[in-house]
Amino acid sequence: MSNVTIIGAGMMGTGITRPILDNGHRVRLVGTHLDRELIDSVKMTRLHPTLHRQIPEEVQALQIEDVDAAVAEAPIVVCGVSSFGIPWFAENIIPKLNPGTTVVSITKGLNSYPDGRLEPFPYYLESLRSDLNFVAVGGPCICFELFDRRHTMVCYCGSNMDKVKEIKAQFETGYYHIYPTTDVIGVEAGVAMKNAYAMGVSLAVGLAEREKGITDASHITDNCVPGAPDLNPIYNPQAALFAQSCIEMRRLIELLGGNKDFASGLPCAGDLYVTVFGGRTRRLGTLLGRGMPYTEVKKVLSGVTLEAVAIITRVAEAVRIKAKKGETELKYFPLLIHMDSILNQDQPVNLDWKAFGEFY
Amino acid sequence: MSNVTIIGAGMMGTGITRPILDNGHRVRLVGTHLDRELIDSVKMTRLHPTLHRQIPEEVQALQIEDVDAAVAEAPIVVCGVSSFGIPWFAENIIPKLNPGTTVVSITKGLNSYPDGRLEPFPYYLESLRSDLNFVAVGGPCICFELFDRRHTMVCYCGSNMDKVKEIKAQFETGYYHIYPTTDVIGVEAGVAMKNAYAMGVSLAVGLAEREKGITDASHITDNCVPGAPDLNPIYNPQAALFAQSCIEMRRLIELLGGNKDFASGLPCAGDLYVTVFGGRTRRLGTLLGRGMPYTEVKKVLSGVTLEAVAIITRVAEAVRIKAKKGETELKYFPLLIHMDSILNQDQPVNLDWKAFGEFY
Repeated sequence: MSNVTIIGAGMMGTGITRPILDNGHRVRLVGTHLDRELIDSVKMTRLHPTLHRQIPEEVQALQIEDVDAAVAEAPIVVCGVSSFGIPWFAENIIPKLNPGTTVVSITKGLNSYPDGRLEPFPYYLESLRSDLNFVAVGGPCICFELFDRRHTMVCYCGSNMDKVKEIKAQFETGYYHIYPTTDVIGVEAGVAMKNAYAMGVSLAVGLAEREKGITDASHITDNCVPGAPDLNPIYNPQAALFAQSCIEMRRLIELLGGNKDFASGLPCAGDLYVTVFGGRTRRLGTLLGRGMPYTEVKKVLSGVTLEAVAIITRVAEAVRIKAKKGETELKYFPLLIHMDSILNQDQPVNLDWKAFGEFY
Repeated sequence: MSNVTIIGAGMMGTGITRPILDNGHRVRLVGTHLDRELIDSVKMTRLHPTLHRQIPEEVQALQIEDVDAAVAEAPIVVCGVSSFGIPWFAENIIPKLNPGTTVVSITKGLNSYPDGRLEPFPYYLESLRSDLNFVAVGGPCICFELFDRRHTMVCYCGSNMDKVKEIKAQFETGYYHIYPTTDVIGVEAGVAMKNAYAMGVSLAVGLAEREKGITDASHITDNCVPGAPDLNPIYNPQAALFAQSCIEMRRLIELLGGNKDFASGLPCAGDLYVTVFGGRTRRLGTLLGRGMPYTEVKKVLSGVTLEAVAIITRVAEAVRIKAKKGETELKYFPLLIHMDSILNQDQPVNLDWKAFGEFY
């Protein structure tokens, strides 16, 4: 039994409290400055307003003012902020941690650099403090399902296999299945890009709806059947884009030096499978597919955190730089580059199907 | 413009008439002895009773008695029978074909041999007549969507790349996108196994429904939302099984000597994506997941062709033989072996989650 402190009280940060609690650990859930109302709600009523679940009394909910004591006593700190919160976490939390603390990151994303380098968050955080241990979580996990103790299979990755296995032993349960690996690039590039490509697959949903005359923001459902709204399903284009997404994720992982087998594993194919069924990225891709320009979609989805936009923009730019340096060719990432032009040049959706597929 | 004769007037054989017709070819659709009523219907009313579509007048529908003339005049013959029809096709159609005829096979499956060898159908057919050319089709393609001219991306494979490209040039359209490859094993092992693993993913749907008290054959829908029937979706276990399926397909392709990259491409991840959304295999896996033993499920689904059962049985047996010979280990195929025990030993569904995932 350990003290485990989670920083970030959003849905993922809160969802993972369940297996940690079930392992008998003492859990502190510390909200960031953005989570003040979430923490207030949990403190007062135990109800988490976005997870829509009662949080057990054993979870100690704390505001950010109490973070110092919460991390001082915790040999394991979970980073549960969104990808946009990583600079904040790096600046405000990392320096507070005791030497030897293990940081378990459930945040997905890649940092990019002017030379085209893409760096998984665990490597970035590791570069800040070499006296800490970093383990990152990737794979298909809808947070409220984990909280409800549904069977969930994920990868835990880190540079140090012993540490990864140590955290696996501390977090695994009968329903939470953890596969350890040292391939941080394979896992993290995959889970970051699945957000990007979930938009890609969803374009096909919007395109199908457009054929039925739906071109506005009506009838956006959160967890909807993949297919046309008249229940006459249109799966072939979705499946084509799903495959194309896995193909491009495989190429990206290989380009970055990871094990491309993850493309057909939990972080890519598996994680993309859950991500296309609903949520923010699905809504984004659907609206774009219906024919709304991104400038319009942004207004409809205002206030919604769109990690997909950030990762597409960042990785497309890195790929362009790498292509200029001769490290790859743009033809290997036609869907990514097109998504970038939709988002950053307000281009209409116009899938170049003949540019997709494998090259032999 | 060529004469193209299709043998087998089921949904796939009929679905592919559209792109062939759109290429200006003269199309003959010859029903097998099992398709007599389908052909009668098309001849009389142009309505295809299972595809539920009007078949254009340009498609000449023929009964099996007219097959000799139909294949004699056709430099391209499409094999559109089910996997159970392959021995019939080998015995009755292959000997009739002119030397130099190209056979385009849309039938998915693998032959197995007592020594554990698994052989894709195109290689099997090739072994019967070396004076013919064989090209096989694999990838996510729901037949009525292809018939409706939805964007569809598939692989065409064959030993001879020139022939593959020749057929691609003759069959491709603005909506039917064909990726040529000589990796017959990668494509065919993938598309055969996706039927097997679609049952595996569907187990999670049934297990979720079982938790809601549904344990009988009620409410089986053909194209249903993956998730629990109360619309409280349960995706994590499905996604885990989806990833595990891709992982095992990757291992099988590698074991058979194909390019394992197809696991994250059209034939595996892509084709599995469409196959889990509905149809026979989905119903099979769902009922098993609800807790019905296979002997019961067989009665409920009586009359339904279950290619998944055949391929699981055949490949599990081959893997066991290969394991005995030291060519692989059973631990690499835990889901396949469990599915086999469900079907062939009437075992209850009992997923050994800790046996899944990657091994590092």
